[in-house]
Amino acid sequence: MFDPSAAPPVDECPFCAIAAAHAPYDPRRPPASLNAELTTPPSFVVLSTPLLVAFLDIMPLSPGHLLLCPRPHRPKLTDATPAEARELGAYVRVLSAALARATGVDDWNVVQNNGAAASQVVPHVHYHLIPRPEIRASGRLSESFTMFGKGRREELDDDDAERLAAAIRREAAAVLAEEMPDEDSDGSGRKTKL
Amino acid sequence: MFDPSAAPPVDECPFCAIAAAHAPYDPRRPPASLNAELTTPPSFVVLSTPLLVAFLDIMPLSPGHLLLCPRPHRPKLTDATPAEARELGAYVRVLSAALARATGVDDWNVVQNNGAAASQVVPHVHYHLIPRPEIRASGRLSESFTMFGKGRREELDDDDAERLAAAIRREAAAVLAEEMPDEDSDGSGRKTKL
Repeated sequence: MFDPSAAPPVDECPFCAIAAAHAPYDPRRPPASLNAELTTPPSFVVLSTPLLVAFLDIMPLSPGHLLLCPRPHRPKLTDATPAEARELGAYVRVLSAALARATGVDDWNVVQNNGAAASQVVPHVHYHLIPRPEIRASGRLSESFTMFGKGRREELDDDDAERLAAAIRREAAAVLAEEMPDEDSDGSGRKTKL
Repeated sequence: MFDPSAAPPVDECPFCAIAAAHAPYDPRRPPASLNAELTTPPSFVVLSTPLLVAFLDIMPLSPGHLLLCPRPHRPKLTDATPAEARELGAYVRVLSAALARATGVDDWNVVQNNGAAASQVVPHVHYHLIPRPEIRASGRLSESFTMFGKGRREELDDDDAERLAAAIRREAAAVLAEEMPDEDSDGSGRKTKL
Protein backbone atom coordinates (compact mmCIF):
# COMPACT_ATOMS: atom_id res chain seq x y z
CA MET A 1 0.00 0.00 0.00
CA PHE A 2 2.84 2.42 0.76
CA ASP A 3 4.14 3.59 -2.55
CA PRO A 4 6.27 6.72 -2.13
CA SER A 5 6.81 6.90 -5.85
CA ALA A 6 3.10 7.48 -6.35
CA ALA A 7 3.35 10.94 -4.82
CA PRO A 8 6.84 12.38 -5.02
CA PRO A 9 7.64 14.83 -2.20
CA VAL A 10 7.40 18.46 -3.14
CA ASP A 11 10.91 19.81 -2.73
CA GLU A 12 10.11 22.82 -0.62
CA CYS A 13 7.38 21.24 1.49
CA PRO A 14 8.48 20.51 5.08
CA PHE A 15 5.63 18.05 5.61
CA CYS A 16 6.57 16.08 2.48
CA ALA A 17 10.12 15.92 3.87
CA ILE A 18 8.85 14.45 7.13
CA ALA A 19 6.63 11.94 5.31
CA ALA A 20 9.52 10.87 3.07
CA ALA A 21 11.87 10.40 6.04
CA HIS A 22 9.53 8.28 8.15
CA ALA A 23 8.31 4.93 6.82
CA PRO A 24 4.95 3.63 8.04
CA TYR A 25 4.83 1.45 11.15
CA ASP A 26 1.98 -0.47 12.75
CA PRO A 27 0.44 2.12 15.13
CA ARG A 28 -0.50 -0.69 17.54
CA ARG A 29 3.20 -1.57 17.86
CA PRO A 30 5.01 1.76 17.76
CA PRO A 31 8.79 2.03 18.04
CA ALA A 32 10.01 3.08 21.49
CA SER A 33 12.27 5.65 19.85
CA LEU A 34 12.50 7.28 16.44
CA ASN A 35 15.32 9.30 14.93
CA ALA A 36 14.14 12.92 14.93
CA GLU A 37 17.28 14.03 13.10
CA LEU A 38 16.21 12.50 9.80
CA THR A 39 14.87 15.94 8.88
CA THR A 40 15.95 19.52 9.47
CA PRO A 41 14.41 20.82 11.66
CA PRO A 42 14.00 17.61 13.68
CA SER A 43 10.66 15.81 13.35
CA PHE A 44 8.99 14.18 16.34
CA VAL A 45 6.64 11.69 14.75
CA VAL A 46 3.65 10.36 16.71
CA LEU A 47 1.95 8.36 13.91
CA SER A 48 3.05 7.03 10.54
CA THR A 49 0.68 4.92 8.43
CA PRO A 50 0.55 4.22 4.69
CA LEU A 51 -1.81 7.19 4.22
CA LEU A 52 -1.01 9.59 7.07
CA VAL A 53 1.77 11.05 9.19
CA ALA A 54 1.52 13.05 12.43
CA PHE A 55 4.22 14.93 14.36
CA LEU A 56 4.71 17.64 16.96
CA ASP A 57 4.40 21.24 15.78
CA ILE A 58 7.85 22.83 16.02
CA MET A 59 6.31 26.07 17.35
CA PRO A 60 3.65 24.71 19.69
CA LEU A 61 0.85 26.81 21.16
CA SER A 62 0.85 24.39 24.11
CA PRO A 63 2.76 21.21 25.02
CA GLY A 64 1.57 18.39 22.76
CA HIS A 65 0.40 20.61 19.89
CA LEU A 66 0.56 18.22 16.95
CA LEU A 67 -0.17 18.12 13.24
CA LEU A 68 -1.83 15.28 11.31
CA CYS A 69 -1.65 15.22 7.53
CA PRO A 70 -1.94 12.95 4.52
CA ARG A 71 1.41 11.54 3.44
CA PRO A 72 1.14 12.79 -0.18
CA HIS A 73 1.24 16.49 -0.94
CA ARG A 74 -2.34 17.88 -0.90
CA PRO A 75 -2.69 21.66 -0.64
CA LYS A 76 -6.21 21.84 0.80
CA LEU A 77 -8.60 19.36 2.41
CA THR A 78 -10.60 19.19 -0.81
CA ASP A 79 -7.43 17.94 -2.57
CA ALA A 80 -7.25 14.88 -0.30
CA THR A 81 -8.76 11.64 -1.56
CA PRO A 82 -11.97 10.34 0.04
CA ALA A 83 -9.93 7.56 1.67
CA GLU A 84 -7.44 10.05 3.11
CA ALA A 85 -10.23 12.29 4.42
CA ARG A 86 -11.85 9.31 6.13
CA GLU A 87 -8.62 8.22 7.79
CA LEU A 88 -7.87 11.77 8.86
CA GLY A 89 -11.27 11.75 10.59
CA ALA A 90 -10.52 8.42 12.27
CA TYR A 91 -7.07 9.45 13.48
CA VAL A 92 -8.02 12.96 14.60
CA ARG A 93 -10.15 11.13 17.14
CA VAL A 94 -7.57 8.46 18.08
CA LEU A 95 -4.79 11.04 18.47
CA SER A 96 -7.10 13.34 20.45
CA ALA A 97 -7.60 10.54 22.97
CA ALA A 98 -3.88 9.73 23.01
CA LEU A 99 -2.95 13.39 23.45
CA ALA A 100 -5.33 13.84 26.40
CA ARG A 101 -3.81 10.79 28.10
CA ALA A 102 -0.21 11.80 27.39
CA THR A 103 -0.62 15.42 28.52
CA GLY A 104 -3.35 15.09 31.18
CA VAL A 105 -5.18 17.96 29.47
CA ASP A 106 -8.83 17.14 28.75
CA ASP A 107 -9.80 20.11 26.57
CA TRP A 108 -8.43 20.70 23.10
CA ASN A 109 -9.01 22.37 19.74
CA VAL A 110 -8.94 20.72 16.33
CA VAL A 111 -8.20 23.28 13.60
CA GLN A 112 -7.65 22.81 9.89
CA ASN A 113 -7.02 25.93 7.78
CA ASN A 114 -7.45 26.09 3.99
CA GLY A 115 -5.88 28.95 2.04
CA ALA A 116 -4.16 32.22 2.91
CA ALA A 117 -7.38 33.98 3.89
CA ALA A 118 -7.93 31.22 6.45
CA SER A 119 -4.37 31.58 7.83
CA GLN A 120 -2.98 28.40 6.26
CA VAL A 121 0.81 28.71 6.38
CA VAL A 122 2.19 25.41 5.05
CA PRO A 123 0.27 24.48 1.87
CA HIS A 124 0.05 20.76 2.70
CA VAL A 125 -3.26 19.96 4.39
CA HIS A 126 -2.94 19.39 8.14
CA TYR A 127 -5.16 19.16 11.19
CA HIS A 128 -3.85 20.94 14.28
CA LEU A 129 -4.58 19.21 17.61
CA ILE A 130 -3.98 21.73 20.37
CA PRO A 131 -4.36 20.91 24.08
CA ARG A 132 -5.97 23.74 26.06
CA PRO A 133 -4.81 23.71 29.66
CA GLU A 134 -7.21 25.66 31.88
CA ILE A 135 -4.77 28.53 32.35
CA ARG A 136 -5.05 29.34 28.68
CA ALA A 137 -8.82 29.84 28.89
CA SER A 138 -8.72 32.16 31.88
CA GLY A 139 -8.72 35.56 30.27
CA ARG A 140 -5.47 35.73 28.33
CA LEU A 141 -7.31 36.68 25.21
CA SER A 142 -4.25 36.67 23.01
CA GLU A 143 -4.00 32.94 23.45
CA SER A 144 -7.04 32.13 21.34
CA PHE A 145 -5.70 34.50 18.82
CA THR A 146 -2.48 32.63 18.26
CA MET A 147 -4.53 29.73 16.89
CA PHE A 148 -4.37 31.33 13.51
CA GLY A 149 -0.65 31.64 13.29
CA LYS A 150 -0.40 35.34 14.04
CA GLY A 151 0.58 35.14 17.69
CA ARG A 152 3.20 34.06 20.12
CA ARG A 153 4.44 30.52 20.16
CA GLU A 154 7.24 28.78 21.98
CA GLU A 155 10.01 26.77 20.41
CA LEU A 156 9.99 23.05 20.98
CA ASP A 157 12.56 21.67 23.43
CA ASP A 158 14.07 18.57 21.80
CA ASP A 159 14.35 16.40 24.92
CA ASP A 160 10.81 17.22 26.03
CA ALA A 161 9.58 16.61 22.51
CA GLU A 162 11.20 13.19 22.30
CA ARG A 163 9.62 12.05 25.55
CA LEU A 164 6.23 13.49 24.67
CA ALA A 165 6.18 11.98 21.19
CA ALA A 166 7.02 8.54 22.61
CA ALA A 167 4.22 8.89 25.16
CA ILE A 168 1.69 9.88 22.47
CA ARG A 169 2.74 6.90 20.31
CA ARG A 170 2.28 4.57 23.30
CA GLU A 171 -1.12 6.02 24.20
CA ALA A 172 -2.33 5.86 20.60
CA ALA A 173 -1.37 2.17 20.56
CA ALA A 174 -3.29 1.66 23.81
CA VAL A 175 -6.40 3.37 22.42
CA LEU A 176 -6.28 1.23 19.28
CA ALA A 177 -5.72 -1.99 21.24
CA GLU A 178 -8.68 -1.24 23.51
CA GLU A 179 -11.05 -0.38 20.69
CA MET A 180 -10.02 -2.72 17.92
CA PRO A 181 -8.02 -5.55 19.38
CA ASP A 182 -8.01 -7.80 16.34
CA GLU A 183 -9.14 -7.31 12.81
CA ASP A 184 -8.90 -3.58 12.55
CA SER A 185 -5.37 -2.40 12.99
CA ASP A 186 -5.29 1.05 11.51
CA GLY A 187 -8.04 2.94 13.29
CA SER A 188 -9.83 3.51 10.03
CA GLY A 189 -12.50 0.87 10.54
CA ARG A 190 -11.27 -1.08 7.54
CA LYS A 191 -9.53 -4.41 7.77
CA THR A 192 -5.94 -3.68 6.94
CA LYS A 193 -2.60 -5.38 7.12
CA LEU A 194 0.32 -3.09 7.81
CA MET B 1 -29.38 1.60 10.19
CA PHE B 2 -31.19 4.67 11.53
CA ASP B 3 -32.43 3.80 14.97
CA PRO B 4 -33.39 6.93 16.91
CA SER B 5 -34.24 4.83 19.96
CA ALA B 6 -30.61 3.77 20.20
CA ALA B 7 -29.56 7.27 21.23
CA PRO B 8 -32.41 9.28 22.71
CA PRO B 9 -32.08 13.03 22.19
CA VAL B 10 -30.81 14.93 25.17
CA ASP B 11 -33.66 17.25 26.16
CA GLU B 12 -31.71 20.46 26.37
CA CYS B 13 -29.38 19.83 23.44
CA PRO B 14 -30.24 21.95 20.37
CA PHE B 15 -28.26 19.66 18.06
CA CYS B 16 -30.13 16.57 19.29
CA ALA B 17 -33.36 18.46 18.56
CA ILE B 18 -32.25 19.11 14.98
CA ALA B 19 -31.16 15.48 14.51
CA ALA B 20 -34.49 14.21 15.88
CA ALA B 21 -36.50 16.51 13.60
CA HIS B 22 -34.71 15.63 10.36
CA ALA B 23 -34.76 12.04 9.11
CA PRO B 24 -31.85 10.85 6.95
CA TYR B 25 -32.07 11.25 3.19
CA ASP B 26 -29.80 10.02 0.39
CA PRO B 27 -27.25 12.87 0.05
CA ARG B 28 -26.97 12.13 -3.68
CA ARG B 29 -30.70 12.90 -4.05
CA PRO B 30 -31.37 15.76 -1.65
CA PRO B 31 -34.81 17.30 -1.23
CA ALA B 32 -35.23 20.64 -3.06
CA SER B 33 -36.74 22.11 0.09
CA LEU B 34 -36.84 21.14 3.76
CA ASN B 35 -39.04 22.50 6.53
CA ALA B 36 -36.80 24.68 8.67
CA GLU B 37 -39.61 25.29 11.19
CA LEU B 38 -39.47 21.76 12.57
CA THR B 39 -37.25 23.17 15.30
CA THR B 40 -37.07 26.42 17.27
CA PRO B 41 -34.96 28.23 16.25
CA PRO B 42 -35.33 27.12 12.61
CA SER B 43 -32.78 24.59 11.32
CA PHE B 44 -31.37 24.84 7.81
CA VAL B 45 -30.13 21.31 7.16
CA VAL B 46 -27.49 20.68 4.47
CA LEU B 47 -26.86 16.97 5.13
CA SER B 48 -28.71 14.23 6.98
CA THR B 49 -27.40 10.66 6.96
CA PRO B 50 -27.93 7.75 9.34
CA LEU B 51 -24.85 8.78 11.31
CA LEU B 52 -24.49 12.55 10.77
CA VAL B 53 -26.39 15.79 10.42
CA ALA B 54 -25.14 19.20 9.20
CA PHE B 55 -26.87 22.58 9.24
CA LEU B 56 -26.18 26.31 9.03
CA ASP B 57 -24.89 28.00 12.20
CA ILE B 58 -27.62 30.35 13.45
CA MET B 59 -25.00 32.98 14.33
CA PRO B 60 -22.65 32.69 11.35
CA LEU B 61 -19.18 34.22 11.24
CA SER B 62 -19.56 34.39 7.45
CA PRO B 63 -22.27 33.35 4.96
CA GLY B 64 -22.31 29.57 4.73
CA HIS B 65 -20.83 28.91 8.21
CA LEU B 66 -22.09 25.42 8.93
CA LEU B 67 -21.87 22.74 11.60
CA LEU B 68 -21.42 19.00 11.07
CA CYS B 69 -22.06 16.59 13.94
CA PRO B 70 -22.86 12.99 14.74
CA ARG B 71 -26.59 12.37 15.06
CA PRO B 72 -26.36 10.85 18.57
CA HIS B 73 -25.39 13.00 21.53
CA ARG B 74 -21.59 12.88 21.98
CA PRO B 75 -20.03 15.59 24.14
CA LYS B 76 -16.47 15.52 22.74
CA LEU B 77 -14.81 14.05 19.66
CA THR B 78 -13.37 11.24 21.77
CA ASP B 79 -16.95 10.24 22.69
CA ALA B 80 -17.81 9.61 19.03
CA THR B 81 -17.55 6.04 17.75
CA PRO B 82 -14.75 5.15 15.31
CA ALA B 83 -17.36 4.87 12.54
CA GLU B 84 -18.75 8.32 13.33
CA ALA B 85 -15.27 9.86 13.42
CA ARG B 86 -14.48 8.34 10.03
CA GLU B 87 -17.67 9.65 8.44
CA LEU B 88 -17.13 13.06 9.99
CA GLY B 89 -13.75 13.08 8.26
CA ALA B 90 -15.29 12.04 4.94
CA TYR B 91 -18.07 14.63 5.08
CA VAL B 92 -15.94 17.50 6.35
CA ARG B 93 -14.21 17.16 3.01
CA VAL B 94 -17.36 16.71 0.89
CA LEU B 95 -19.13 19.63 2.57
CA SER B 96 -16.00 21.79 2.25
CA ALA B 97 -16.11 21.27 -1.51
CA ALA B 98 -19.87 21.90 -1.63
CA LEU B 99 -19.54 25.04 0.47
CA ALA B 100 -16.81 26.50 -1.75
CA ARG B 101 -18.99 25.90 -4.82
CA ALA B 102 -22.15 27.30 -3.21
CA THR B 103 -20.49 30.44 -1.81
CA GLY B 104 -17.73 31.04 -4.36
CA VAL B 105 -15.29 31.40 -1.43
CA ASP B 106 -12.19 29.23 -1.84
CA ASP B 107 -10.60 29.62 1.60
CA TRP B 108 -12.13 28.25 4.79
CA ASN B 109 -11.44 27.09 8.34
CA VAL B 110 -12.42 23.77 9.88
CA VAL B 111 -12.64 24.06 13.68
CA GLN B 112 -13.74 21.55 16.27
CA ASN B 113 -13.60 22.59 19.94
CA ASN B 114 -13.59 20.17 22.87
CA GLY B 115 -14.39 21.41 26.38
CA ALA B 116 -14.89 24.80 28.01
CA ALA B 117 -11.18 25.67 28.00
CA ALA B 118 -11.24 25.18 24.22
CA SER B 119 -14.33 27.43 23.84
CA GLN B 120 -16.81 24.64 23.16
CA VAL B 121 -20.27 26.12 23.71
CA VAL B 122 -22.77 23.38 22.78
CA PRO B 123 -21.62 20.10 24.37
CA HIS B 124 -22.49 17.95 21.35
CA VAL B 125 -19.42 17.41 19.17
CA HIS B 126 -19.47 19.51 15.98
CA TYR B 127 -17.07 20.59 13.26
CA HIS B 128 -17.39 24.22 12.18
CA LEU B 129 -16.85 24.90 8.46
CA ILE B 130 -16.31 28.62 8.03
CA PRO B 131 -15.79 30.29 4.64
CA ARG B 132 -13.13 33.03 4.76
CA PRO B 133 -13.81 35.69 2.16
CA GLU B 134 -10.66 37.72 1.44
CA ILE B 135 -12.00 40.78 3.25
CA ARG B 136 -11.93 38.90 6.52
CA ALA B 137 -8.23 38.20 6.24
CA SER B 138 -7.21 41.75 5.49
CA GLY B 139 -6.34 43.10 8.89
CA ARG B 140 -9.58 43.04 10.83
CA LEU B 141 -7.93 41.13 13.61
CA SER B 142 -11.10 40.70 15.65
CA GLU B 143 -12.43 38.41 12.94
CA SER B 144 -10.09 35.55 13.71
CA PHE B 145 -10.93 36.00 17.30
CA THR B 146 -14.63 35.38 16.86
CA MET B 147 -13.80 31.83 15.80
CA PHE B 148 -13.86 30.85 19.44
CA GLY B 149 -17.29 32.13 20.21
CA LYS B 150 -16.27 35.25 22.07
CA GLY B 151 -16.80 37.80 19.32
CA ARG B 152 -19.27 39.41 17.04
CA ARG B 153 -21.52 37.33 14.83
CA GLU B 154 -24.48 38.14 12.64
CA GLU B 155 -27.90 36.61 12.89
CA LEU B 156 -28.99 34.35 10.07
CA ASP B 157 -31.56 35.72 7.63
CA ASP B 158 -34.15 32.98 7.06
CA ASP B 159 -34.71 33.53 3.33
CA ASP B 160 -30.99 33.72 2.58
CA ALA B 161 -30.44 30.66 4.73
CA GLU B 162 -33.07 28.62 2.91
CA ARG B 163 -31.55 29.39 -0.48
CA LEU B 164 -28.01 28.78 0.71
CA ALA B 165 -28.85 25.47 2.40
CA ALA B 166 -30.56 24.23 -0.77
CA ALA B 167 -27.50 25.23 -2.82
CA ILE B 168 -25.14 23.40 -0.46
CA ARG B 169 -27.31 20.26 -0.58
CA ARG B 170 -27.26 20.38 -4.39
CA GLU B 171 -23.49 20.91 -4.55
CA ALA B 172 -22.82 18.11 -2.07
CA ALA B 173 -24.89 15.80 -4.27
CA ALA B 174 -22.86 16.91 -7.29
CA VAL B 175 -19.56 16.23 -5.52
CA LEU B 176 -20.71 12.76 -4.47
CA ALA B 177 -22.02 11.94 -7.95
CA GLU B 178 -18.73 12.99 -9.55
CA GLU B 179 -16.57 11.04 -7.13
CA MET B 180 -18.59 7.94 -6.38
CA PRO B 181 -21.18 7.52 -9.08
CA ASP B 182 -22.25 4.02 -8.18
CA GLU B 183 -21.44 1.76 -5.38
CA ASP B 184 -20.56 4.26 -2.73
CA SER B 185 -23.45 6.51 -1.90
CA ASP B 186 -22.63 8.03 1.44
CA GLY B 187 -19.24 9.63 1.01
CA SER B 188 -17.78 7.38 3.65
CA GLY B 189 -16.03 5.01 1.29
CA ARG B 190 -18.16 2.12 2.47
CA LYS B 191 -20.80 0.46 0.36
CA THR B 192 -24.05 1.59 1.88
CA LYS B 193 -27.72 1.53 1.12
CA LEU B 194 -29.63 4.56 2.33
